[in-house]
Order: sequence, then C-alpha cells, then structure tokens
Amino acid sequence: MADDTDLTFDPGLEHVLAAETRLSTIDGEAGELVIGGFPLAELASNATYEEALYLLWNDRLPTSEELDDFRASLQPHRELSGGTLAALRETAERGDDAMDAERIGAACATLARGSDAEPEPKRDAMVAVAQLPTAVATYWRLSNGEEPIEPRDDLRHAANYLYMLTGEEPTDEQVRGLETYLCTVVDHGLNASTFTARVIVSTQSDVVSAVTGAVGALKGPLHGGAPGPVLDMLDAIADHGDPEEWLTDRLDSGERLMGFGHRVYRVRDPRAAVLSAAAEQFYADEESAFFDLAKEVESTAVDVLAERKAGRSLETNVEFYTAVLLRGVGVPRELFAATFGVSRVGGWTAHCLEQLEDNRIVRPRSRYVGETDRSWVPVEER
Amino acid sequence: MADDTDLTFDPGLEHVLAAETRLSTIDGEAGELVIGGFPLAELASNATYEEALYLLWNDRLPTSEELDDFRASLQPHRELSGGTLAALRETAERGDDAMDAERIGAACATLARGSDAEPEPKRDAMVAVAQLPTAVATYWRLSNGEEPIEPRDDLRHAANYLYMLTGEEPTDEQVRGLETYLCTVVDHGLNASTFTARVIVSTQSDVVSAVTGAVGALKGPLHGGAPGPVLDMLDAIADHGDPEEWLTDRLDSGERLMGFGHRVYRVRDPRAAVLSAAAEQFYADEESAFFDLAKEVESTAVDVLAERKAGRSLETNVEFYTAVLLRGVGVPRELFAATFGVSRVGGWTAHCLEQLEDNRIVRPRSRYVGETDRSWVPVEER
Repeated sequence: MADDTDLTFDPGLEHVLAAETRLSTIDGEAGELVIGGFPLAELASNATYEEALYLLWNDRLPTSEELDDFRASLQPHRELSGGTLAALRETAERGDDAMDAERIGAACATLARGSDAEPEPKRDAMVAVAQLPTAVATYWRLSNGEEPIEPRDDLRHAANYLYMLTGEEPTDEQVRGLETYLCTVVDHGLNASTFTARVIVSTQSDVVSAVTGAVGALKGPLHGGAPGPVLDMLDAIADHGDPEEWLTDRLDSGERLMGFGHRVYRVRDPRAAVLSAAAEQFYADEESAFFDLAKEVESTAVDVLAERKAGRSLETNVEFYTAVLLRGVGVPRELFAATFGVSRVGGWTAHCLEQLEDNRIVRPRSRYVGETDRSWVPVEER
Repeated sequence: MADDTDLTFDPGLEHVLAAETRLSTIDGEAGELVIGGFPLAELASNATYEEALYLLWNDRLPTSEELDDFRASLQPHRELSGGTLAALRETAERGDDAMDAERIGAACATLARGSDAEPEPKRDAMVAVAQLPTAVATYWRLSNGEEPIEPRDDLRHAANYLYMLTGEEPTDEQVRGLETYLCTVVDHGLNASTFTARVIVSTQSDVVSAVTGAVGALKGPLHGGAPGPVLDMLDAIADHGDPEEWLTDRLDSGERLMGFGHRVYRVRDPRAAVLSAAAEQFYADEESAFFDLAKEVESTAVDVLAERKAGRSLETNVEFYTAVLLRGVGVPRELFAATFGVSRVGGWTAHCLEQLEDNRIVRPRSRYVGETDRSWVPVEER
C-alpha cells in the first residue's frame, strides 16, 4: 500500500547506524572494546563501579571529592519501598525467575523517587542504578525463605550488593572481582537492551521506564541468558569426566554449546580475557581443578567448533568467564543474568542521557504483507 | 575504530523497514489505515475489542463459538495479585502519573500468570491484555481515595473497564463508543512502543516484558501523551471564548498546539474521522456546544497552522478526537494515555507473536564519537 521501494529491509538492523555514541565502541574483527575512552583492560582492572558510572555519565573520571559526592547521592536511593517489597515477595514465593524480579524492581523504582514525583533524567538514573541490586538481592533472600537484608550506607555499590545477598561483609578480593565484572560488562555498543532503552527514552519517556524495558530485553536467552547455563555445562562436564566426548556428544545431538559465538565478534571476546584473569585468583589450591577444567573446556570447545562449523567464528564469548568469575566471587548462578543487569544499568542510563541530549523519536517503517480490503461479516454469519 | 563506511546513519530509523507485518499498514499520503486486512472504518465501527484482538492474533475473525471461548480465556486473568495491588496503591497514594501505574501493572503481570510460572507467548499475551485495564482502573480508584472495584466476569472487556472505573454498569452507547476507540488505535505500524515490544521479544524474552517496555515508550509525550492536554486546551478555549485569538496567541508565544501533526501522515489522520463520528452522539442537546467548539477549534487550527507553517502538513491527528470521544464516554482525562495503552496492548502482543514466528535479534550499530586511548589515573592523582 504505502510506497517502500526506497527503503532497506533490515529486520536485525545490522546495517544501520542507529545512534552516535561516545560511550563504547567494538571492533569485532580485532576483538577490541573501548569503554568511556579507555581500552577495556585499562578500565576494568582499575575502576570501581561508581567511577565507571561517573565516567559514562560525564565523559571523564571524577576527582576524589566528586567521587565522594557521587557515592553519597547514590546511596539514599538503595532502599526499596513497601510496595516494591510486596511485589518482590510475591514473585519470589511463586518461584519466578530472577529476571522477572529485576523487571518488577525496575518498574517500581519510581516508588523510590522520594516525595518529588516529577521525572528528572539524572536523578531517575541514580534511582534505577541504586534500586536494581537491592531488588535482586531482596528477591534472592525471599526465594530462599530468608528475610531481606537492608542496604548498608558505609559500603560501596559492589560491596553492598554482595552484603545484601548474604548478610556477610565480603572480602576485598570478592569486591574487586565483582567490580571488575561490573566494569567489564557495563556497556557494549547498541546491544538489544541498550537500544531498547534508547527507543523508549526517544519518546521523551522517563529513564525508569527505559531501564525497565531494557531489563525485559536482557531477560531474553539470545541476549543475557547464558552465563547460568555455562556453569551448569561446566558442572555436567566435571561429572562426566571427558570434555571432548561431552562436547562432541552435545553437538552430535544438535545442541548449542553455551558460552561461544557472538553476533559482533569474529575473534575471542576481549571481555573473556579480562574476566578470566580476574577469575583465576578465586581458584587456588583445592579449587584450582575447576578453573583448569574451564580452560580445558574452552580450548576443546573452540577446536571442536572450528572443525564442525568452519567459517562461523564461534569463539569464547563474555558469558563463559562471567560464569567462572561470578562463581568465584560467590554470586549464585540463578542471579548471573540479573547481575549482568546490575552492571548494564550503568550503560542503559548513560545511553538514555546521551539520547536525550540530541533526541529524535525512533520510528522505523514496516513492510505490509497482509490483506487490504476485507469486508465485515457479522459474527452470526461467520 | 570499527569500519562503518558501508552503513547508513539513520537515528530515527525513518528509512528502514524493520519488520514485515500483516497487522496494519499506513498510507500517510492518502490518509489510509488498514488493520488486520480491514479498512479502518470497516473494523472500528463493527468490532468488539475481543474480535479485533482475535483478528490480530489469528489473521481472521472468530466464529461465534471461537469468540465465546476467547472471551472465556481472557476473563480469568483480569484480577490483580496482592503484590501488584500493593505497588499500585503506593503509586496512587504518591500521586504518580497513570502511566507509572500502567508500567508497574504490566511489569507485575507475571504475578497473575497462575501457578505455572513458565513463559508461554499466547497465554502471556492474554494475561497482559487482561491485566492492564484492571491495573489502570485500580490505580484510578485508589488515586481518588476509593477502594478498587473487582472485575466482573459477565462483562466484556470494554464494558468491564468502564465498570471498574466507576462501579456502575455502563450504557450500551458508552460501551460501543469505547469499543470504537479501542479498535481504532489498536495497531498502527511500527510506532515507537510497538517497535520496543518487537525489539524486546527479539531476544526471546517473554511477552509480559515486551509489553512492559512498550508501556514505557507510550508514556513519552512524543508518543502517547497528548490526548489529555488536548482536552485541557479545549477547556481553556471554551473559557476564553475566541478560538482564533487563543490559537494565534499560543503560536505567537512559540507554543505547540496539541492534537495536530504526525510523523507519518501528510493529511488528516484517518482515525480522526472515525473517532469524530463516534464522539458526536455523546454531545446531544446541552452538550452539543462542546462538540461544536471542538469542530471549530479543529478547522481554525488547521487553517492557522497552514498559514504559519506552510509545507509542514500539520493536520488533525488521532489525539484530537480521542480527547473528544473519551470525554463523551466518561473516561477521566488523566487516564487518556493509559487507556491508549489498554487498546494498544492488542497490537503490541500481536507484534510479539508475529516477531516470534520468524525472529532475528534486533541489534543495530552505532557510530563512535568518543575518545579511544585514555590512560588510567588513580583517584588521588586526579
């Protein structure tokens, strides 16, 4: 009906630059990732989550005083409202997935806005970033029949998340391990969840609504869903004993291997190296067998995939060593995807703020493939 | 960094066909809209909301028996869970916007899934469609210090929504007026909220998450936000007395007029005619002055805009007569945008089901405009 002959059909949007951004860039051929102007390894091994967040929002690192102020402005938004808690309690008691809880926590974040109800992009971004870890940890405690643990103001963002999961103050190594994870996956170009956030905010909607939509996109197994299953796979291989046999059996029966392949990278995901290096320290002494197994599974899988799927470039992706690192840090595997969200909300909010600086509503076209002149028939004559 | 020379920069995605769809098509030059194969007027004046929904999901109208079954499968999902109610009560007591309530209601819809927690696209679509009106009506009652009214199983979808708002059974005229509205705006190509839903579900996420993101996009004033303000404008003009003077004053002071102009239409939005015709019956006798005023404001505004913004094609859009019709039906203006969502969830869910039939994850590219080789400086040296 409408003339669409001058338009490109591109349902995955693979050939469209949908935004300009200064937040991150990926070279999929070279396996390089830059976040906030820093090569990934430079940022991930040094920054606390608050520094990475400040960097993405402001395009520079904070001074010591700015960082203190920034932390002080995040902390008051950590606590959940009574309504949010009631909804999370119900979803936990039902045994729903952690991503359902994270979506509910995100949607209810406006309840933590304080008494001034008006949307304000930067304050809403703070609220969303501060609420998600509390929502996930609260869900987790309730899922296990335990009462939630209140956030602690003297702990930084990453440390407080671990504390709310267990009630115990984490070690410096755990905190640094989690900070490295959170900074490694905080932003990654226009992935589906980040793009979702930008589309939502392009209508001049609020940042909480954008983050809520983004959590929903991250929930999909094609996006954020695989680090938990990677750990299940590693456990199954450990039980079985022979990685090569286990992996080839899976491929023979037509199954996908978890933790390999990515739409953008043709080589090893640069995040795998950073996460692997950060993970290793958690696997000393009697734990070293698990890390050695992971390394063996990785090299065997890459070899087997190269042989069977020649030309597909199925290299190790971010999920493989996410699983190994978060296991070491002590995050339960049921929360791996939700913890991805706890990090990525930094990127989502930064993209929202960037989109609002120079906004145009996102409204693509569609090609119509249906009927055009049906006539109404009353129900009794059908 | 990454090579993007072969890619098109199109931040509004105006030149991209992002999906094939059989759900609706717009001819913006001719001012024609086809929904589910029917020219708009043919569908909107005949269909109940359940018939339009069945049509979008199944690409044909239901038989009488199928329609009965369809209604019977929607009804059990209307009631809110306790957790949802607690969150809505809090957002109402805070005085938050109805769209915040609708987003929270959508996000919590998984709590109404019944005891089987697994996502299932068509059942989740039913749950989302059935939950939104209850969430909006419940929020509204609580906002006014009244207790919520339970959904009534013997009422159809549109009638039950009106009943839950007031506690009174609506007249046949009110129900038909609302049905016409709900069927008129149920789908409209790849608008920002519908596209949001498709992007979310393209990760193989669930339909509830997709609908939740879509509500967030609809919340933006560039998308669903103007029918309430249209009514405020008409009231202000009625108080003032001289439409032409009021409208030219507004334009002189650089303000936008509500209810005119659309990204896609170059002529009068075809939905305006359908909604106007449906609205007229509510303005008989002493009420006729308001309808006459609306007609006068429309024609004056179109003339004034044509004179001042030559070449911009600022014709009447859907929001103008949405305001007039919903006022006649008795929907409070604070709920106009949320009632748009109560309708459009039919299109969102249909697009989700369609996307899942032939899915490809949506992941556009971005052009990097930031730094690339910053070096880390410890906080104490900044």
